[in-house]
This record gives sequence, C-alpha cells and structure tokens, in this order.
Amino acid sequence: LKKLNRNVDRITTITKKLAMDDPRRVIHSMKVGLALTLVSLFYYLQPLYDSFGDSGTWAVVTVVVLSEFTVGATLGKGLNRVMATLTAAGLTVGTHHLAILCNKVGEAVVIGLFVFIIGATSTFLRFFPIIKAQYDNGLLIFILTYSFITISGYRGETNIIETAHMRLSTIVIGALICLLINIFIFPVWAGEELHNSVALNMEKLAHFLEGLGALCVKLTKVEDNSKDENKSSSQAYKSVLNSKHMEEMLANLARWEPRHGHFMYRHPWNQYIKLGGLTRQCAYKIDSLNAYFNHDGEISQSFEEEMREACTKISLESSKTLKELGSCLRAMTYPSSLVNAHILRSKEAMESLKTYIKSTSLNSDDQLLQMVPIVTIAFLLIDIVDYTEKIAASS
Amino acid sequence: LKKLNRNVDRITTITKKLAMDDPRRVIHSMKVGLALTLVSLFYYLQPLYDSFGDSGTWAVVTVVVLSEFTVGATLGKGLNRVMATLTAAGLTVGTHHLAILCNKVGEAVVIGLFVFIIGATSTFLRFFPIIKAQYDNGLLIFILTYSFITISGYRGETNIIETAHMRLSTIVIGALICLLINIFIFPVWAGEELHNSVALNMEKLAHFLEGLGALCVKLTKVEDNSKDENKSSSQAYKSVLNSKHMEEMLANLARWEPRHGHFMYRHPWNQYIKLGGLTRQCAYKIDSLNAYFNHDGEISQSFEEEMREACTKISLESSKTLKELGSCLRAMTYPSSLVNAHILRSKEAMESLKTYIKSTSLNSDDQLLQMVPIVTIAFLLIDIVDYTEKIAASS
Repeated sequence: LKKLNRNVDRITTITKKLAMDDPRRVIHSMKVGLALTLVSLFYYLQPLYDSFGDSGTWAVVTVVVLSEFTVGATLGKGLNRVMATLTAAGLTVGTHHLAILCNKVGEAVVIGLFVFIIGATSTFLRFFPIIKAQYDNGLLIFILTYSFITISGYRGETNIIETAHMRLSTIVIGALICLLINIFIFPVWAGEELHNSVALNMEKLAHFLEGLGALCVKLTKVEDNSKDENKSSSQAYKSVLNSKHMEEMLANLARWEPRHGHFMYRHPWNQYIKLGGLTRQCAYKIDSLNAYFNHDGEISQSFEEEMREACTKISLESSKTLKELGSCLRAMTYPSSLVNAHILRSKEAMESLKTYIKSTSLNSDDQLLQMVPIVTIAFLLIDIVDYTEKIAASS
Repeated sequence: LKKLNRNVDRITTITKKLAMDDPRRVIHSMKVGLALTLVSLFYYLQPLYDSFGDSGTWAVVTVVVLSEFTVGATLGKGLNRVMATLTAAGLTVGTHHLAILCNKVGEAVVIGLFVFIIGATSTFLRFFPIIKAQYDNGLLIFILTYSFITISGYRGETNIIETAHMRLSTIVIGALICLLINIFIFPVWAGEELHNSVALNMEKLAHFLEGLGALCVKLTKVEDNSKDENKSSSQAYKSVLNSKHMEEMLANLARWEPRHGHFMYRHPWNQYIKLGGLTRQCAYKIDSLNAYFNHDGEISQSFEEEMREACTKISLESSKTLKELGSCLRAMTYPSSLVNAHILRSKEAMESLKTYIKSTSLNSDDQLLQMVPIVTIAFLLIDIVDYTEKIAASS
C-alpha cells in the first residue's frame, strides 16, 4: 500500500511539473476534448445525422488525427489529408473505369495490380527527403484512401463517387472544426516556437558565458558552490547541442502557417535554421571550452591576472552580444548598434589579448603545460567572438 | 521542354541514388504493395467477404498504417493498436451501460462528457516523455477508437459489442499480414540498425583520426588536395554530432523487437545509447580539434617535429582503438586485448608528449602564439584517448 502511495505521489509530481512547465499542454488537452464533443453533434442532432449518416465517423477520425499541438502541424496534416483524399478519389475513379472493361476475374487482377503499383510507388516516394519533411502524412493518407476505396469499390454495392464525396465533405468539416479550435483558442504557432527556441538558445549561451566571466575572476580558486552553479548553467547550454532535429521539425511545420502576429506567410524560416546552426556551432565551442576548467595549475601571478582580465572581458562582452542578439531576435528588430558596440569591444579585448600572448615570454620551463589551457580558453573565446559576429550578421 | 527534360533527369538521378544507397527501400516498397494486394483478398474471395463484409476495410487501414520500415516500428504500432482497441472497446461498453440509465438527452450529455474527459486526459498523457517514446501511437488509436465507437453507438443501430469484435478481429488479421511480411521477407530490424549505426559512427571517427594522423605528418605543409580529402572525411564525422535523435528513436523501436540474429529480446539497448553518447562526446572534441588546422604559423623545427611525431602516434593509435572497438561491437565480442594494447600505446605516446611539453622551454618571444594550437591539438588528442578508453570500458 505504501508503495502504491509513493507511486501515486510520483505520478502526481510529474503531472504537476508537466502542467506547470507549459500550461499550454493542459489547454491543448481541453481543446481536443472540446473538438471531440463538438464533432459528436453529428450524431446527436437529428438533422445533421439525417444528411451525413454514418459518414460522421470520418469527421471523428479526422478530428482525432488532426488534433496536433501546433497550428502548423494541424494545418499541414489537414491540407495533406484533403489533398490526398482528392487525388486518391480521382485515381480511384480512373482505375475503376479501366477495371470495368474486363470481366469479374480480370477486374480483380487489374485492381490488385494497380493497388500494388500505386502502393509500392507511394511508399518509395516517402523516402525522398523533401517529401518526407512535408508530405509524409499526405502520402500515407493517399495510400490509405486509394486502397480503401478501390478495394471496397470492387463489391460495387456502394457508389464510389458518392462514397468519395461523403468522405471528403466529412473530412473537410472535421478538419475545419479542428482548425478553428486550434487557431482561435489559445493557438500555439510552430513559427513562434521556433522563433523563441532560437532566441532562447542564444540566451542560454549568453548566460553560460556570463557565468564564465564570473568564473574567470576566480580562475584558480574555483570553489565548490560556484562549480555547482556552473554545472546548472552548463546543463542549459547542453540542450543547445542537440537542438537540430527540433528546429528542423518546427521550421517544416511553420511553413504551413498563415500570417500571424509579427510573422508573415513565407517568413524566412530557413534563416532560423541557419541562425540555429551557428548558435549550435558556438555551443560546440563552449562545450570544449568547458572541458578546460578541469585542468588547474600554477601560473605566474602577472600572466594569470592579465589573462583573467582579458578572458573576463571577452566572455562578458560576448555574453552581452548574444543576449542583445537574442532580445533583438525576440523583438524582430535588426541588431541594434548596441550589438555592434559589444562586438567591437570584445574584438578589442581579443586583439589586446592576442598582443599580450604574443609578447609574453616564459620564465620557467614548467609553465607551458599550465599556460596552454588558459591560452586555449582565450582562443576559444576568440572563436566565439567570431561566431557571435556571424550570428549578428545573419540576424 | 528542355527544362522538363532536365527536371526528369534530376528526379531520375535522385531516385537512383535513393535506391542504390539502400536497396532495402525498394524491397520495402514492394512489401507494402504485396501486403495491400494480399489484404484485398478480403473483398475478392467470396467466403472471406461473406464472413467479414465491409469490416475488411479495417484490415486495409491497418495494413497501410502498420507498414513501417523496421520490424520494431511495425510490432510496436501493431501491439499499441490492438491493446488500444481492446481497452477502448472495454471502456465504451462501460460508458454505454452508464449512459443507458438516463433518457435520450441525458445519454447524449453523459456520452459527450465522457468523450471530453477521456479525450482530454489521454491527450495530456501523450505529453509524458516515457509514454511519448513508446505508446504515443497507442494513445492516439485509443482516443480514436473510443470516441468512434462511443459516439456512433449513440444511434444504437449497430451492436456495439459486435462492432468492437469485428473491428478487433480485422485489425488483428491486418496486423498479422503486415508482421509476417515484414518479419519473413527481408526484415529490417531497428536493433540491427542501431547496432550498425553506433559501430559506423565509431568507425567514422576512426577514419577521421587516421586522416588526421596522415595530416600531422605534413602539419605545416598542408596541400590543397589533402585538405579536400580531409573535408570529405570531416563531413562524415559531422553526421555523428547530430546522431542523438536517430539513435534514441531506433532504441525505442528496438525495444519492441523479439529475439533475432545475435540480439535477444531485452538486449541492453540503453548500452547503445550510452556508447552513442560517448562517441558523440568524442566527435565534439574532434570537431573542435578540426578548427585548429586553420591556424598556421612558424615553429622551431625540433619542437614541431617532436610534436608532430607524438600527435601522429596518438591519433593513429586512437584511430586503431576506435576501429577495433567498432569491429568488436559489430562482431558482438568483448573488446579484444588488441584494443587494450592500442590504448596502452596511445597512453604511452600521450605521457611522453606531456613530459616533452613540460620540459620544453621557449627560445623566442614570438613562439607562444604559434605553439598553442599544436599543444591544444595534443590536449584534445589526449581527451580523445580518454574517451576511447571510456568507450572501451562500456563496450
């Protein structure tokens, strides 16, 4: 009993966390429930039932399948579904005109052959990367509808054209219910998600660099609690490393979305992919930077101080650049002159660091090993400055 | 017309490439066509049609939806589908016993309420990460079937239990057709895919390090053609950086698969995720390593030679370690003593490199800047040696 209690407690905690982290999840669930209840009116209201009959079930199926989290996903799936049903219906009619020319056995052979060929071809088409990204669902529905109507049409008890017409109209109605609810009740736009996620990733990196700047101040006297702090912010930037799949998916969905908020239809989503890619490159650098804080050694006082100062300055300025870029992106403005100022200052710091490293001579033989990590950190910071500049240029 | 010709040419090229890269794609398409033709027998053969009637269409739908590339995906989806239909049918019967207690309007209200609550709850459940990974499809089918049967049951013209029974049996038959074709005709196992992909990723890194070793020999005299070569192999390791999503998906699918080949049911797939993660970490290091080949400068002859030799040795030995590990993984044997020998030798090289760097003193002030990249390369190689050791330990 105690075990059960503990399990219930754990599930409650997870549920609360899921709901708190993103309350839109709860709203989305409600929306699906609402759409289902609405579509069931097809059965409850006599006049609706009279005109659609059992075809109403197709509206139910459509609502369930199209109830996606983002507007882009619902729209994309819906358009795919409608287009696929239309094409499939057209092809079915063609197939039957051909099949009817033969006798009953010949008809079965012709239908079987066509189902095989069209099924196999469409399945192969789904392997094309471009098609997979945007029309995968549509092809699935196409195969489904085509074989469904063609095969059941063999028995000829139902009128193919009427069946196709019924299915299409109920699908369109189901899709409309889904879309209206999804667009007008607390919509979740894939484009906005992508926009926010790219900006957030920049801010995550900025936050890490900020923490790094603070860390540089006490480079060799790293205390335990600051290490923990660094850990939690390093956790944040790590999610940037694997953001590629998410961003590409969101961009594909966003392409379906109409104009909304500040975003136009055909907003340059590819630009986000590019920005996201550069941010990720920057995150890789930061990842390798992070590794060098494990090395520690003794370095001559003056060298350490100079390096520390320069590194602090560079990382703080880069952090500010990224933060500013993130908020410019959020506000959809061109990078402000503030960004350029930060880049300029970080470049200055970088140049002076370079000159300093060039002019340094070693005093004792033992130092090279201890110095290299710091110089590497400096180099990586320089690379990061480069990337922030690139990100700024593509914003 | 010329433009059309060119487009046709391009499509033909892409198609050929897709088919050549992985002939299993063509076979898979054929298999789907075959499954569809088989399932259409439900309509062609009189005795089958007599017993199933129009329920045969559900078998068609099931076949289309379950025709996935890997056995794991088909099995997982199939089990999800059958379980979901069963649970949904059970719940539907319960709902109707409750709804029948009220009058006709009350019945509609009760059904609407239940559809709302169960639809919303199941949709929310789909946000749980564990459920999303393995049971997402099942929940979708559950919502679909539940609302489908419950809502259409309101009209009471069809017997609910009979409908549920019919649907379930046709779904099971469709799923069986799909599974048999998927398992017995050139099966594609998700587990094997995962296994090969992890091993291949190791080999990609090994290949890169091998190229690096060759590159180190002519560290400062990088010629254009060798840079191109390096580019193509760097392209290969770059795919490792973003392999996380693929590997996790394959592992989720592999969990559904029964014993096959050398793989048992409940094969330690998590181990692959771990190995893949370490390989990816190693790839990050290699990625940052790659950046240092752009810096070039002049270094004292003896220092350069010494470093070059050590780096070559380390990268070649690491490469051999990774290659050996990859082939051990492929053969599913424990890492051989050869691996340990390579690790030992790379560690030796690493130690001697460390001592050499420690003992080096700088002659002129200008050198530090030029030396640091090389020392960093050495450090990164040392890290890579560490990772290869970790990978070896978890194999």
